[in-house]
Amino acid sequence: MITIRNLPLVTLVGAGPGDIDLITVKGMKAIHQADVIVYDALVNKDLLDEAKSGCQFIFVGKRGGKRSVSQDLINETIVQSALNHGHVVRLKGGDPFVFGRGHEEYTYVKDRGIPINIIPGISSCIAVPEMEKIPVTRRGISESFWVITATTKSGALSKDIGIAAKSNCTLVILMGRRKLNEIVSIYSKINMDTAIMIVQSGTCDNKKVVIGNMSNIIEKADGANIGTPATIVIGDVVTLHSQYSVFGQEAVFAKQVVI
Amino acid sequence: MITIRNLPLVTLVGAGPGDIDLITVKGMKAIHQADVIVYDALVNKDLLDEAKSGCQFIFVGKRGGKRSVSQDLINETIVQSALNHGHVVRLKGGDPFVFGRGHEEYTYVKDRGIPINIIPGISSCIAVPEMEKIPVTRRGISESFWVITATTKSGALSKDIGIAAKSNCTLVILMGRRKLNEIVSIYSKINMDTAIMIVQSGTCDNKKVVIGNMSNIIEKADGANIGTPATIVIGDVVTLHSQYSVFGQEAVFAKQVVI
Repeated sequence: MITIRNLPLVTLVGAGPGDIDLITVKGMKAIHQADVIVYDALVNKDLLDEAKSGCQFIFVGKRGGKRSVSQDLINETIVQSALNHGHVVRLKGGDPFVFGRGHEEYTYVKDRGIPINIIPGISSCIAVPEMEKIPVTRRGISESFWVITATTKSGALSKDIGIAAKSNCTLVILMGRRKLNEIVSIYSKINMDTAIMIVQSGTCDNKKVVIGNMSNIIEKADGANIGTPATIVIGDVVTLHSQYSVFGQEAVFAKQVVI
Repeated sequence: MITIRNLPLVTLVGAGPGDIDLITVKGMKAIHQADVIVYDALVNKDLLDEAKSGCQFIFVGKRGGKRSVSQDLINETIVQSALNHGHVVRLKGGDPFVFGRGHEEYTYVKDRGIPINIIPGISSCIAVPEMEKIPVTRRGISESFWVITATTKSGALSKDIGIAAKSNCTLVILMGRRKLNEIVSIYSKINMDTAIMIVQSGTCDNKKVVIGNMSNIIEKADGANIGTPATIVIGDVVTLHSQYSVFGQEAVFAKQVVI
């Protein structure tokens, strides 16, 4: 039997924030052509239905909050899949170069001499507030936005959050749900009236939203049982939210915010 | 004669950074359904070819660097087009809620009682460096990124750039080509070795790239005749660029950088 094998190729694709139609046209074309798809926990599984018949799927995401596959093994899985099967689509939630170690995967594959392309994805840092009708920038309110991961390599909360708290930027914190108390603590020394929104599972059907200020957000988030993945948005743009305008920042949103 | 008119509807769509395949699947579907497309200068005109027969196109972008249509007139054009023709796609370069006054358009249409949806787009602030293989974040190098417009409402350079210069973030400046001297001046008081990349017309066929540090970037940008639209990326992640690694930050890139 003769096996015709495609040449090794890797395409690093951003799957976007959840809604499968928020992948790019180019990303969808790559999925159609893939021989193997290596995907993460945050990728919408319905995207796999778009692959051609015979495409292999390899899950390398977290299970129960813990990564079951090391980054080294993910890197080598991508390379071996390309060498053995041809076109590997490495499908990552959001954008591959916004946190998530996409550049490490890019470097690893490239250093092994395998051609690699990158297709950007819609990042939740912009799209999740956007789907709540909150712009990260708004003329006269906020002329910049700063995107920070709460979960740094060292495990400590980024010092940049303290700097951001003193600027006029919109602050977007990814992977910050478990650090909410620390974040509020930083703002408690600056301005407890600062508006804050937390969105769990943004752009998806099961999303939850809480809106408040630094005085009440912990209680609200706990009360609404907000979990992960969560996007935290801090700054005056949050006051543009329809729920915020109607009830005012001192109101208790407990029943309204889970929308 | 009976005219069947579609119900008024507006969809605010991010066209992405230039490459037409970098629009989302959802954005492309909206274009297919549009009765009218109201578009800006930074939108790739090839996207208009995807519209159905009979779709009207209204250009409201800048001509010769100056906006020929006021924001008030753009807002009213969108509303009147929806009332008279049905489904209006308001097509904006990049993402509609990253600068560009998309939220003002959203509010105006909503306040007129017309249904409006938002479809995010790939923002050049992430995708333009990404297409140069530069991640805005990289574990151990930069754990945050700050996106700032150089062209604020008041015309002055944002004070946030001075704050950003003292943090560890990757700084992405949009609409900053004409403010390059002022930006370098801020860094000259902090660290002249800071790496900087400027990309004109990122993701497009006619793109130009210059890479250097604060000591030489003005000369390089002028030498390569870098114009607008430009994305400026500042920080250690720029040193990951293949051109930067090979030649070192003190080298003269004049011949290599225009790629």
